[in-house]
Order: sequence, then structure tokens, then C-alpha cells
Amino acid sequence: MHEIQGQLKTESVILPSDFIEEIHNQSFYGRIVKQGIKLTLSEAAYLLHKQKIEIVSGTKKLDFVDFFKLASSNDKNFEVKYIVYEDLRERGYYVQPSVMDFRVYPRGGHPGKTPSKYLLHILSERKITPVHELIECVETANNLKKRVVLAIVDEEGDITFYELKKSVLGEVTTTGLPQLEEEATFLGDRTIIWNSKTSSQLHQQGFYGKFLDKTHLQLSLVETAYLLKEHVIRLQHANNEPITHSEFITLAGTIEPDFQLKYRTYEDLRQRNLVPKTGFKFGAHFRVYVKYNREDKTTHAEYLVHSIPSSHQFSLSDFSRASRLAHSVRKHIIYAVISGDSITYLEIMRIKL
Amino acid sequence: MHEIQGQLKTESVILPSDFIEEIHNQSFYGRIVKQGIKLTLSEAAYLLHKQKIEIVSGTKKLDFVDFFKLASSNDKNFEVKYIVYEDLRERGYYVQPSVMDFRVYPRGGHPGKTPSKYLLHILSERKITPVHELIECVETANNLKKRVVLAIVDEEGDITFYELKKSVLGEVTTTGLPQLEEEATFLGDRTIIWNSKTSSQLHQQGFYGKFLDKTHLQLSLVETAYLLKEHVIRLQHANNEPITHSEFITLAGTIEPDFQLKYRTYEDLRQRNLVPKTGFKFGAHFRVYVKYNREDKTTHAEYLVHSIPSSHQFSLSDFSRASRLAHSVRKHIIYAVISGDSITYLEIMRIKL
Repeated sequence: MHEIQGQLKTESVILPSDFIEEIHNQSFYGRIVKQGIKLTLSEAAYLLHKQKIEIVSGTKKLDFVDFFKLASSNDKNFEVKYIVYEDLRERGYYVQPSVMDFRVYPRGGHPGKTPSKYLLHILSERKITPVHELIECVETANNLKKRVVLAIVDEEGDITFYELKKSVLGEVTTTGLPQLEEEATFLGDRTIIWNSKTSSQLHQQGFYGKFLDKTHLQLSLVETAYLLKEHVIRLQHANNEPITHSEFITLAGTIEPDFQLKYRTYEDLRQRNLVPKTGFKFGAHFRVYVKYNREDKTTHAEYLVHSIPSSHQFSLSDFSRASRLAHSVRKHIIYAVISGDSITYLEIMRIKL
Repeated sequence: MHEIQGQLKTESVILPSDFIEEIHNQSFYGRIVKQGIKLTLSEAAYLLHKQKIEIVSGTKKLDFVDFFKLASSNDKNFEVKYIVYEDLRERGYYVQPSVMDFRVYPRGGHPGKTPSKYLLHILSERKITPVHELIECVETANNLKKRVVLAIVDEEGDITFYELKKSVLGEVTTTGLPQLEEEATFLGDRTIIWNSKTSSQLHQQGFYGKFLDKTHLQLSLVETAYLLKEHVIRLQHANNEPITHSEFITLAGTIEPDFQLKYRTYEDLRQRNLVPKTGFKFGAHFRVYVKYNREDKTTHAEYLVHSIPSSHQFSLSDFSRASRLAHSVRKHIIYAVISGDSITYLEIMRIKL
């Protein structure tokens, strides 16, 4: 034992080339370089802990504690990378470094036999994470035909894995709504359509609004804006003063600070022939039905969609909450990321790895 | 039909006293006053919609639409109150006005027969709600020996009911921890105890930390602060420079903005002989074990506890997320509201009514 001795460089450990067969070819640690085998700090710490190698810095032999302290000083993400590396290796996965922290081979696969399956991006729970960083991860992984997974390490070292995906939510089509110009009254928090026939028609055919009682339909702010734009309703205040579409947009923005953000997504979803309804009970902007059928009581909203600006920064505990909740109600959680004229739908799914 | 005629006042409708038996004594609408029966706007709208009464303003007869518009102008919370009133009456509950919107009689009970059971506080989903307002609700209800329920009306008029309670989380006791002064290294995001015997002891007896591998224990920031204060560990940087307790508190605050808030609750829970561990996977600060037993793999954390300052303002969709999540993992969600030296534990539970 203890015959393999590695030399610590700043962010790597170099093993002599004598051990290429044992360490690299059979056990899939490190990469072959001119000087021998180059290990990442995580690989080196793991092999040191397993007492497979010794590590020296110059001529000084390092024990695990010394090495861990030095590695932490040299790479500020060392601890979280090591925690994830150790977890995956212990559970039989082969792991190599990649453009995005790690690439992970599928169960039963290893370097040289199979392509890697996942690109892993490792984050401490405390890392405030801009959504554009996540979208870039997805795009990088898509280009490499890999799946992208976030490994979030909490403050006690537990790891949660989330897969990220761009979601395609149906084609934009032109929908024809009846230009009824039906009278509707805006009451500060919601709108009421008084005519019971129109109320029924809108509720039956497009699942707009909700009945206040059995006769009058109440519309949410986004529904009001959409139906007003499409001339399905004309709108007035309780004192019968008319409200134009652009006046309403301004007004709604004062009532609900997120209104513009929500409305952009609402309109886009409606144009894709989906049925968005409030997701308030699920802590998201919308629950979304792909196929909505009034007659079928078992109709299930497949998605929870939440609008965010492209400048949004996630606190990672948002993912814990959102994905657990979505899972418990059997829905997919999708963030609608609004950037200029375009919307990127980003799906986040907790997975077991 | 239509023989009962009420007169609209600003925030009420007055019916003639001839109908006291029918309207008040048998059906439990309104309160008896000098002029007759005084109805709230919600009661009046409900009776009007049911075609049980007519309403006039001066000499002008009002239809439902006219009345609804006027009532909305006179009371800006009219719509949400009406939505809740209509829902409860339709489902067979008797409802009277109270200091806090409504009081609701238990199923099978009514005014004059039984005391009311719930005090209902009605909020639109968009109402940003200060936590002190909720604590005042609980205190008012406690004084009146009632249960307090929030009725939150979402933008489509769906209602979610939440019961609020002050929670008692065990007595403060003096705990004796061994003053080991064990060496521990702070690595920027977490602390490592290197000694395997101490690691095992702390993990076994108090469920402190989590094993990094099978030998070394990692501690979270709050655990580090607590064990440092109790002289269980002494702390140093990776370069072996020592860190005092007060230096660590300052340092931790720069790493995690919520640190002070979290730590206050952590220490209080530990002093109550409870075992708080990170609640990151549940989107809360802590999961809390009442009786923790290392040997028993079925041990279940009963509570999710989240620290907030007494100046905190809730967005009501927080409740949707938190209570759904808590329910799906069979835990109680409790907010630790920090005010000066004291902590109020406020429990929020979604209920069916």
C-alpha cells in the first residue's frame, strides 16, 4: 500500500505514468498528460481518503486534513465539488471534469465505453443564481447532446439534483374570438361580466373567468386585458366611465406590480392554444391546461408556469419549494423567462441520480 | 315574492321590522336595530341575488348589477367579502359580521343556539400582509376563545382557508454540552471537525453536523456558531488562524445575509431541547425533530420552521407554497417571528371549511 505518490500542483495532483493502467485505464481517474496522470483536487482527495495514494507538496507529505485545507484555499468551490464527487463515486458513477464542473457516465458506462450522459453544474445552496446562467448551461448541454443537471449542495452537505430543460409549449396559432364587445365592469380587483349568456359562452368555450354566482362571470386582470384587446368585452368602471385597453394595462400595473410580466406570458400561452388559469393556490402565476374540456371533470392542468424577467436571480431554495410542490400535485414547473420580445420556457425537475 | 323591500344606506341595507321573524329569527340574516333589520352589503347582495328581497336607494329600485356596482364603490372590500359570504352560506354555514370581517357558526349551529366557532379575516390574494397583523388576529381570537381563519380570495374568486395559531414548542431548559474545545476548520461555506471520535459523539448524541465521509463531520454555519459559543469546538481558518465567536458571527453574516435571523431561532430551538437541522430541501430554514433518536430510522421531523423579522410582510402566495409543501411531507409550517428578545412561533395550516 501507499506506493503511489502524487505531487500537488495548485489545482491538480500529478501521479507518475507507471500507474496509468491501474488508476486511469481500470478505475477511470484522471487524464493522461505528458508528466503522467493529472487528477483534479476532488479525485485526489477521494483517492487519498481511500488510502489509494499519498500526496506530497514539494517534499512534505500531506495527510487528508492538510490536503483538504490546501485544496480549499486553492479552489473556493473545492468542498462542494468534493462532496458531489464523493457521493457519485460511492454510488458507482464514473465522473470526469467538464466545461461545466463534471460530466457523469450512465450507470454501467465509463470513459472509453460509452459517452457521458449528464453535464453537472455544482452550486452551493447559498449561490444566488442568475437565470441566464442556467439558460446558458442548457444551451451548452444541448450543443453537446447531453442532459444538464444542477447539483445543489445544502449547508449540511446534502445534495439535490435538478434537471433543466427548454420546454416547447405548442405552436402559436391565430385564434378567432367572437368580437362581442360585451359590457363588463371593472371593480378594482376583478371584472364582472353581467350577461349570463356571454358569461356561459366564455366560460364553456375558453374556460375564461369563474362564476361569481350562477349568473355573473368574474374575470382576472390578465383575462380582462386579453378579452379587452380582442374586443370580446368593452370595459367600464363601476360609475360607468369607459376604460380603454391601454388605460387598463396602466391601471392593472398599479394594482399588481407583476402584471406586465404575467400578461406577456398569459397572451403567449393563449396564442399557443393553451388554457392558463391562476396558479395562486400553487404559488405560481399560472396553472396551464394543454387540452381543456369543460365536460370532463378529470381535466388536469399539466403545467405550473411562473413569469420572470431575464434579469431574475434565483435563490436556490426557490427550487426546493417549487419542485416539491409541483411534484406533489403532479405538474411540471416551468419558468417563462421574458427577454425583449421572446419568451424562453425553462423547465426544472428534481431527479434522483 | 318581492314583497320585502330594503333601503340602501352607505354600508348597510335596512329592512322593515315586519320581517324579523322570517329573515332574522329563522334564517339568521342581519341584526335587529331601532329601524328594523340591518343587513351588511354582503347579506343584502346575497338575498337580492336569491330574489328574497328588493333593494331601493331613495325611491330608485336597484337591480343586482346596480346594487353590486354601488356596494363596490361604498366598500372597497365588498367583492371579496361577498365571494366568501356567498360561498359559506351556499355550503350551509351561518355567518355574522364580527370585529374581524365575519364570525362563522359551526356546522349545525346558528346564532342563539351555539357560540360561533371561527373568526374569519378576509384578504384578496394581492394584499401584502404584515406578520404583525396576523399575530394581532390570533391574539384577538384567543381573547374571544375563537379559532382564527384567513380566507384568501384569489384573482379568479377561489377561496383558500388557513387557520392561524401560536405554537408552543417546549420549555427552555439548560443543556449541558461537553466543553471539548475540539479543533475545527472553517472553510468558507461550512466547518469540518477532523477528529473522528468527537465527530461521532456530536453526531450521535445531538445530531450535529453531517459526515463528509465516514470520518470527518461537517457543520453548518448555525451549528458552528452554537458549538463555538458552548466551547464544544474551537475554530480556525484553513491557514490555522483562530476565529473567535464574535468574529465568526460577523463573518457568517457576510456569507449568509439571513444568518442572524436564522441563528436566533436555531439557538432558541436547541434551548428547548428540539433538534433543528437545515430545511433547505423543504424551502425553509429548519426542519425540526421533537424527539430525535439516531437509532430509529423512522424518526420524522415534525416541523418546518422559518425565521422572519417582526417587520416581515407576507405575499399571500407564500402561504400556498409553504402549506402545500408542508402538507405533502406531513410537517407543520411554523414562522418564527423575531421581535427584540422574544420569538413568537406562528403556525399556518390550510384547512377545509
